[in-house]
Amino acid sequence: MLIRAAVGEGDRETVWSIIGPVIAEGEAYALPRDWSREEALAYWFAPQHEVFLAEAEGAALGACYLRPNKPGGGAHVANAGFATAIGARGRGVARAMGEHILAQARARGFRAMQFNCVISSNAPAVHLWTSLGFDTLCRVPEAFAHPTLGYVDALVMYRRL
Amino acid sequence: MLIRAAVGEGDRETVWSIIGPVIAEGEAYALPRDWSREEALAYWFAPQHEVFLAEAEGAALGACYLRPNKPGGGAHVANAGFATAIGARGRGVARAMGEHILAQARARGFRAMQFNCVISSNAPAVHLWTSLGFDTLCRVPEAFAHPTLGYVDALVMYRRL
Repeated sequence: MLIRAAVGEGDRETVWSIIGPVIAEGEAYALPRDWSREEALAYWFAPQHEVFLAEAEGAALGACYLRPNKPGGGAHVANAGFATAIGARGRGVARAMGEHILAQARARGFRAMQFNCVISSNAPAVHLWTSLGFDTLCRVPEAFAHPTLGYVDALVMYRRL
Repeated sequence: MLIRAAVGEGDRETVWSIIGPVIAEGEAYALPRDWSREEALAYWFAPQHEVFLAEAEGAALGACYLRPNKPGGGAHVANAGFATAIGARGRGVARAMGEHILAQARARGFRAMQFNCVISSNAPAVHLWTSLGFDTLCRVPEAFAHPTLGYVDALVMYRRL
């Protein structure tokens, strides 16, 4: 698997092909399920984001971004977002992207990484981040309206770098 | 004290006169201390924000906003921001604005309110939100670079509505 920076219009189309179905599914991100391509790409490629694509044998498997969690006095803590192409689940794509993003964050001098809203019902994500050294700092009660499960907790997860 | 919706260009100027010095002080918000008027107002008056001004005897004492903490599946949880004019500290302005925002959030049907980054060294804020029924869900270690104290923790605070 190769993970590389996303560049150019073609990569934006690839990112949309990955994140569009994940956003529409509405189970992993607190983002509007009906977001258009333009809205989703404006979010994923926001000015402070570095965007990466995971590929194998020419096929795009996942997309992720790295950014400061907050500006100003919070800019030494990193945040990141990840989406695995729905057809590529179960192949370790998110783990490879997570390891890549942690290394990139360390290289850029971030002191820690924080996830603000890991959906508690997203067991693969909670398991992955825990196995990559993240602690669950707290559960926010019923912070996420899951499309089939109803209100579920969201986790604040954190690790030093 | 009157708390009312901010409207028009004159109110934008008033908001800037309140939030500009608070942002530049850099002790209460993870926002760039060198933000321009335009950058600060674009943040405070973001499309999903409802902005209010606190006044007494014609003088503006504070500004606050109410918004969803997250879009999509997180939009039932409110978030808010508050700034008291530096010259009006110690007069209960933040408490009055907090009570107003809680009432507004209830009226709009939000189920809870969450603060993501209350600076632990901002003792008046921590005391105020605790006294208004917020629980501290967790401390994020050294999440904020304070201009004089160095790295201090940030608190995730939460209450049901």
